[in-house]
Amino acid sequence: MAKLAPFHWPVRVYWEDTDAGGIVFYANYLKFFERARTEWLRSLGVDQSALMAEQHGFFVVSDTQLKYHAPARLDDALSVTAQLSALGSASMTITQQCLLGEQRIVEGSIRIGWVTKVLDAAHASNERFKPTRIPQIILAKLRI
Amino acid sequence: MAKLAPFHWPVRVYWEDTDAGGIVFYANYLKFFERARTEWLRSLGVDQSALMAEQHGFFVVSDTQLKYHAPARLDDALSVTAQLSALGSASMTITQQCLLGEQRIVEGSIRIGWVTKVLDAAHASNERFKPTRIPQIILAKLRI
Amino acid sequence: MAKLAPFHWPVRVYWEDTDAGGIVFYANYLKFFERARTEWLRSLGVDQSALMAEQHGFFVVSDTQLKYHAPARLDDALSVTAQLSALGSASMTITQQCLLGEQRIVEGSIRIGWVTKVLDAAHASNERFKPTRIPQIILAKLRI
Amino acid sequence: MAKLAPFHWPVRVYWEDTDAGGIVFYANYLKFFERARTEWLRSLGVDQSALMAEQHGFFVVSDTQLKYHAPARLDDALSVTAQLSALGSASMTITQQCLLGEQRIVEGSIRIGWVTKVLDAAHASNERFKPTRIPQIILAKLRI
Repeated sequence: MAKLAPFHWPVRVYWEDTDAGGIVFYANYLKFFERARTEWLRSLGVDQSALMAEQHGFFVVSDTQLKYHAPARLDDALSVTAQLSALGSASMTITQQCLLGEQRIVEGSIRIGWVTKVLDAAHASNERFKPTRIPQIILAKLRI
Repeated sequence: MAKLAPFHWPVRVYWEDTDAGGIVFYANYLKFFERARTEWLRSLGVDQSALMAEQHGFFVVSDTQLKYHAPARLDDALSVTAQLSALGSASMTITQQCLLGEQRIVEGSIRIGWVTKVLDAAHASNERFKPTRIPQIILAKLRI
Repeated sequence: MAKLAPFHWPVRVYWEDTDAGGIVFYANYLKFFERARTEWLRSLGVDQSALMAEQHGFFVVSDTQLKYHAPARLDDALSVTAQLSALGSASMTITQQCLLGEQRIVEGSIRIGWVTKVLDAAHASNERFKPTRIPQIILAKLRI
Repeated sequence: MAKLAPFHWPVRVYWEDTDAGGIVFYANYLKFFERARTEWLRSLGVDQSALMAEQHGFFVVSDTQLKYHAPARLDDALSVTAQLSALGSASMTITQQCLLGEQRIVEGSIRIGWVTKVLDAAHASNERFKPTRIPQIILAKLRI
């Protein structure tokens, strides 16, 4: 799968994304990366809100590694990539870049797992989440 | 109740709160105001996460009005107030200020109501929320 | 000018926008509104980052009034409007809506002014901002 | 220096920090970590806003690595640590944990460098930042 070309998603920098240094606040690249992952999954037919409603499950991030090479600024038109680099039955790793034209702004890898809601018998209202295998319906779409 | 002195909560400005203008991003004052409201409610014995777990209900904001008088900056040590200005059976209004020493930075009023979770019989997983009366257990604490 | 049809900008709801109530966190609609205002200004030829670099000035928000009618949720494809409703020499008011299909989610009005950077002679590094008239180059574009 | 006990900073989880999964949105731990780093630096006498005003320099994050072990939820009273694990002339690494009582929620390491503002002669208004050595006044405080 890693041979496939990465998915690209455009992200515009707004005031909300910047900080007093005049550049994009570094935590916000995790948001940009997630928008691109979400749109990549959507492009494969994976609908996260339907899965949450029907399967009571959702993806959770277990590891993030980011390297910041250059700053992005207000109004920059960025391109954010997402590319599956590892896929197991319980987790997957996505390699991502944030680009400004040819320039690499940030790159990183995000490892995510799948959890499902479990009700605690003693406290029916007390939602807990259990790590579990990624549903076959998702894996099938990722293995294309 | 409005005669009571307002509740005060300290808020420090970090990088995350600022924008490329070098000042606090205006949307973030709504976060500062909510921290103060939450701590004010906690000081009265209102525990929002317990209410969400036990009563499947929570406060939702229905109106916000803010006036921005002066900017706050990185490292500023702000004081945020919360004072109940109107209380009905289904909603309440809180008047709030963000102060830097004697200087008024932002002031506003926030109207909030109460909603409870209702399960849709046809789609058990599809959470919807219905506006309802504020629980007596909360009203009793606000009427002190 | 108010007779012109409002500008529309699409906004998708991601995980970053939601809160533990399962809905969009109310402060985030101010971000959605600003994205739409920024794109509306860009569509008129107003380039905020160029103005900041060349004129040392930028827009600041002085008043916000929002009414929340219904919640938006993860993956919702929203449309956010921006329409100039008042224009003075030193400030303007923009009326905005956040729509989900035909449904009105949030509506509000945002008043913004213009400030320019002034250097304090005694403390050259200490940036301060002074309210001033909106540059003619911007007014000319808004008066179309 | 790594032998010193880590610095601890309390962080309360508010609505703003959570997402529709009912847990703290993972990007927000970078904010919690930064609040703890800022307060750790402040406790050592390093005043970031004064340094920005006087030396036209500030810290920038160059690498982040986070592992997410367990979720935190609304109203959780977290403790966030900061401990210097490497110090060079141009960068330093801080090891951090987010704890809920004895439980490890997130841990990670953050590498930061120092940049100073350089004015482009041709475009005086066009701020750029150049990586440079950490000022001695800061290094002296970190080497205690």
